[in-house]
Amino acid sequence: MTDTATRTAYDAVATLYADMFRDVLDGLPLDRGMITGFAELVPPGPVADLGCGPGHLTAVLHSLGLDASGLDLSPAMIARARADHPHLRFDEGTMTALDVPDGGLAGILAWYSFIHMEPADLPAVLAEFHRVLAPGGHLLLAFQSTDGTETEAFDHKVALAYRWPIDALADLTRRAGLTEVARFLRRPTEIERFPAGNLLVRKP
Amino acid sequence: MTDTATRTAYDAVATLYADMFRDVLDGLPLDRGMITGFAELVPPGPVADLGCGPGHLTAVLHSLGLDASGLDLSPAMIARARADHPHLRFDEGTMTALDVPDGGLAGILAWYSFIHMEPADLPAVLAEFHRVLAPGGHLLLAFQSTDGTETEAFDHKVALAYRWPIDALADLTRRAGLTEVARFLRRPTEIERFPAGNLLVRKP
Repeated sequence: MTDTATRTAYDAVATLYADMFRDVLDGLPLDRGMITGFAELVPPGPVADLGCGPGHLTAVLHSLGLDASGLDLSPAMIARARADHPHLRFDEGTMTALDVPDGGLAGILAWYSFIHMEPADLPAVLAEFHRVLAPGGHLLLAFQSTDGTETEAFDHKVALAYRWPIDALADLTRRAGLTEVARFLRRPTEIERFPAGNLLVRKP
Repeated sequence: MTDTATRTAYDAVATLYADMFRDVLDGLPLDRGMITGFAELVPPGPVADLGCGPGHLTAVLHSLGLDASGLDLSPAMIARARADHPHLRFDEGTMTALDVPDGGLAGILAWYSFIHMEPADLPAVLAEFHRVLAPGGHLLLAFQSTDGTETEAFDHKVALAYRWPIDALADLTRRAGLTEVARFLRRPTEIERFPAGNLLVRKP
């Protein structure tokens, strides 16, 4: 997907999406445990929720004591995030070119957001993440996974997305100069189609 | 290792061990997230911390709202657990034959405890866990892992232990009639030699 296609798709569903996913972590305590662990491992400094949507997880990171802000392609999502969380900063923008100096971030959360990138474009995105992370900074990626060995396109309800084998994604992060900290794979719940993957890496 | 050998080894180090591991989760927020998630997923009912040592995690489970008790082979460990946590129940015993009726437990935590079992004995232990779990009950296993495909004996500081490939362990739990919920693999910290594995399964 291009940024434009993803933006248009999310703009169209911003209200519905925000209402559906506001409390998504309530039913996923293990996933919440990964976010909580990430929040504790991140060194002091700014943390970006990239592809933040309506900002529900930006608010979670803030509640865990982080200096968190959100970024999203979709103006409608950003408007909703600002309305729901007026105490936090949200900006429109793309994760492919961040308005952040080298080493300017202590942490990045990309929670089911990079999934819309064409797989061939992901190395450049990971290079950008590596650029903006400070040494010791952490990156937490969440994604639909697959037990196979290849990325697989699927009909995500909002916009075309790709499932990632966790080994393939871990390999790309390693090539981007990031070091694996931990990985998590959860079997699908009754309302999910695919396994949930989390990959936590850090910049050495 | 036989139960007798494991008991003797842990009896000899109970005080040192208890002092070293009391706050072990403080530096391992992701591992703590798995325990917290487990605590939320466990249905109402009794939860057993099997191989509880000095009872530090039994106390964590209790603090998370569970009806938790501890079991350990080592009388010295049980004495220490009772002294440190007088509000909780601790019993001497073996995980190979639990004094629990069929379906009597809502949850089992086996945190780096079954690692001393001979790998060939583990299917019988998992069958016992399956017997005592109620339908919907959860089992969380923690262990030193290996990136290889075979179990590997190693010189654990207290007693001979075995590292498990997470796939091999997941396969054994499946054969025991348990369903995978999630798996977690963390790279070693500076004070660890091996990857840390967690496997969460439930009885259907």
